[in-house]
Amino acid sequence: MAINKLFARRALKAQPSAIREICKLAAKTDVKSLAGGWPSGDTFPVEEVKQIVRNVLDEKPELALQYGTSEGLVELRLALAEWLQNRDGFECSSDQIMITSGSTQGIELCAKVFLEPGDAAFVGLPSYFGGIGACQAFGAHLVGVPLDLDGMVPNELEKRAAFAMEQGHRPKLLYIIPDYQNPTGAVVPLDRRRKILETASRYDMVVVEDSPYRDLSFEGEPFPPLMALDRDSRVVFLRSFSKNFCPGFRLSLLAGPEDVVRNMVIARQFEDACPDVFGQHVLLDFLKKGFLDKQIEKNRAYYIKKRDRILDLLDENFPKQVTWNRPKGGFFVFVHLPEGMSGMDLLDKAVKNNVTFVAGSAFFVDGGGTNTVRLSYSEADDESLEQAIVVLGRLLKEMIKG
Amino acid sequence: MAINKLFARRALKAQPSAIREICKLAAKTDVKSLAGGWPSGDTFPVEEVKQIVRNVLDEKPELALQYGTSEGLVELRLALAEWLQNRDGFECSSDQIMITSGSTQGIELCAKVFLEPGDAAFVGLPSYFGGIGACQAFGAHLVGVPLDLDGMVPNELEKRAAFAMEQGHRPKLLYIIPDYQNPTGAVVPLDRRRKILETASRYDMVVVEDSPYRDLSFEGEPFPPLMALDRDSRVVFLRSFSKNFCPGFRLSLLAGPEDVVRNMVIARQFEDACPDVFGQHVLLDFLKKGFLDKQIEKNRAYYIKKRDRILDLLDENFPKQVTWNRPKGGFFVFVHLPEGMSGMDLLDKAVKNNVTFVAGSAFFVDGGGTNTVRLSYSEADDESLEQAIVVLGRLLKEMIKG
Repeated sequence: MAINKLFARRALKAQPSAIREICKLAAKTDVKSLAGGWPSGDTFPVEEVKQIVRNVLDEKPELALQYGTSEGLVELRLALAEWLQNRDGFECSSDQIMITSGSTQGIELCAKVFLEPGDAAFVGLPSYFGGIGACQAFGAHLVGVPLDLDGMVPNELEKRAAFAMEQGHRPKLLYIIPDYQNPTGAVVPLDRRRKILETASRYDMVVVEDSPYRDLSFEGEPFPPLMALDRDSRVVFLRSFSKNFCPGFRLSLLAGPEDVVRNMVIARQFEDACPDVFGQHVLLDFLKKGFLDKQIEKNRAYYIKKRDRILDLLDENFPKQVTWNRPKGGFFVFVHLPEGMSGMDLLDKAVKNNVTFVAGSAFFVDGGGTNTVRLSYSEADDESLEQAIVVLGRLLKEMIKG
Repeated sequence: MAINKLFARRALKAQPSAIREICKLAAKTDVKSLAGGWPSGDTFPVEEVKQIVRNVLDEKPELALQYGTSEGLVELRLALAEWLQNRDGFECSSDQIMITSGSTQGIELCAKVFLEPGDAAFVGLPSYFGGIGACQAFGAHLVGVPLDLDGMVPNELEKRAAFAMEQGHRPKLLYIIPDYQNPTGAVVPLDRRRKILETASRYDMVVVEDSPYRDLSFEGEPFPPLMALDRDSRVVFLRSFSKNFCPGFRLSLLAGPEDVVRNMVIARQFEDACPDVFGQHVLLDFLKKGFLDKQIEKNRAYYIKKRDRILDLLDENFPKQVTWNRPKGGFFVFVHLPEGMSGMDLLDKAVKNNVTFVAGSAFFVDGGGTNTVRLSYSEADDESLEQAIVVLGRLLKEMIKG
């Protein structure tokens, strides 16, 4: 009856992710959702997947429906090593790659393998709470590092690392989303990437580079990943296939130093044993047939239009006291309301009008960002997007008038 | 260069699972493997899966390739609640069910949600090391409870729980595989199930009932699960779909008290976010079309033959000083060598002869079982099975002769 009295302290502390809970709300009702960072179903390569699953089930059902190794299919890891070299400009062996069950698992494995309770973990201010939650789960002392329009500010990282050390916290891990950041959309320029790596090197930290939106660049090619600039093997690179392929098979790649990967593979044996094997065979064929690179081009074209559409709608509907960025890739517009206004208040009103989004404060480990809002333009269709922005514009004007 | 110097203590302690490592060996070479508990690819419902994936991709690709909720598809959980009632004789709501990424994740979530460092966790002597490894990862004080031919001995559990308490360890969790246990094949009879639950109740422990082989009963129906006999909501029931459907989609169900499931769903948000969505849609259709119950009958017939075959081979080839059980279900024969002989020594010799299995000592948390051996008859084809047993018989005779 009272089994909950047996919960471990970590279970009592666990909080639901704001986004997952809001997405459940959005799924249940007729809500126009700008909340989740889910890709649009319109972009899914359905015809290609149909053809591939037929081949997979004709040719190797006894492999595709079986267990696999914890690190993932060797053929897939070999193909991905080649793909990474072409696409992201760095060499790595198949032993430096593992397939994780989403980048969520990649983040969790980084936290598990590196963090002792009290170690300082640095995250953007604001930053995606998947990274934050995983570090929290392993008892990290979380430190927010301010971002500006060019993403994480290297001097701020340096200052905070020094301060954490003074306070007795070992600076251990930096979690960073350098490309089209969640939630700000910011891109870290090349020189900053180098400076951030130098700081990480000086404090002997692991750098967890999470780049789910990397392939969704709207204006030219993205900068080289930190992984490609890293000179002393301290970067673990998480590269999801949820936004350039589809999320349904839960596939992501993790690349890092070989002994780190080996340790994560061991840790994984007591988490979920191995990634989805059927999905890996589908992704392998998708990659080998050259569909992945084509899909990336299609998705770029699709989401540029969505980005342009939301920017037009914001210009037309939002009051001039409200500001936002012009994302060069990814799924998000980050909105600043006038000082003193609250994103949570706007959300309360919006939900009553069947519109939802994520209040920016969910992304700030320091309790800040109360006047910010994350709008996702990835999933809503054009009509819902327009209706949602019109409603939000009206609510904002009412709130500003007071 | 020295990123491994940054590893957390838990990462330094992590050991690869003996089975996964041996399976990698088996996959690489021309080895006859009796090691892994993998189902035979011959049993996979390929034609049914082909038909279903076509339907799924025709009718709901935008759902099947998308993210899903962390607890799993509501339609699937509703259908499984009904299936559990018909099959296992207990009622539960869809909110008491979550879909996990294999029962491996279910075990891990139990350990995560309930265990504080130093809490006593009780496991069979011997027992599957998935359960052992997960409890170890969360700092449990592991206590082995002897089994006999009827599985875990209730009096031994009682004695060890009392002793753990005397030593200052809070008895917190019992991990038990009551049906066709891994590695012994033993089944816990009905009266023992009740006694074990009484002991768990007296010491206020959570019972983690892991039953991946439950549907592979060769001689009549299995006993009711502990979950169905539980009077005070302390059982979490893990029911894998790897052995009655296929492992490739990594799907298992976890059923338990609603607040426990809710807490696990939250924990899971920072592990892998959600289970394989495509696979869940396939399993949903497989279940709704009545294929799952038919598949269970097919698998029983298939593995009874395998069981009979290995028992015949053992009778013909193994020396009389060696003993083993006659499993009434599942995948394993557990072999006792004469006292003083070593399963590891046999394994060393066997590997040189291209035969592999798991030495029984891997399943004993107390360092015992050196003269035991687990032979899996599930995956090897008839010819490999025969060749392997002939080789092992010869090696055993040589070892006994000295």
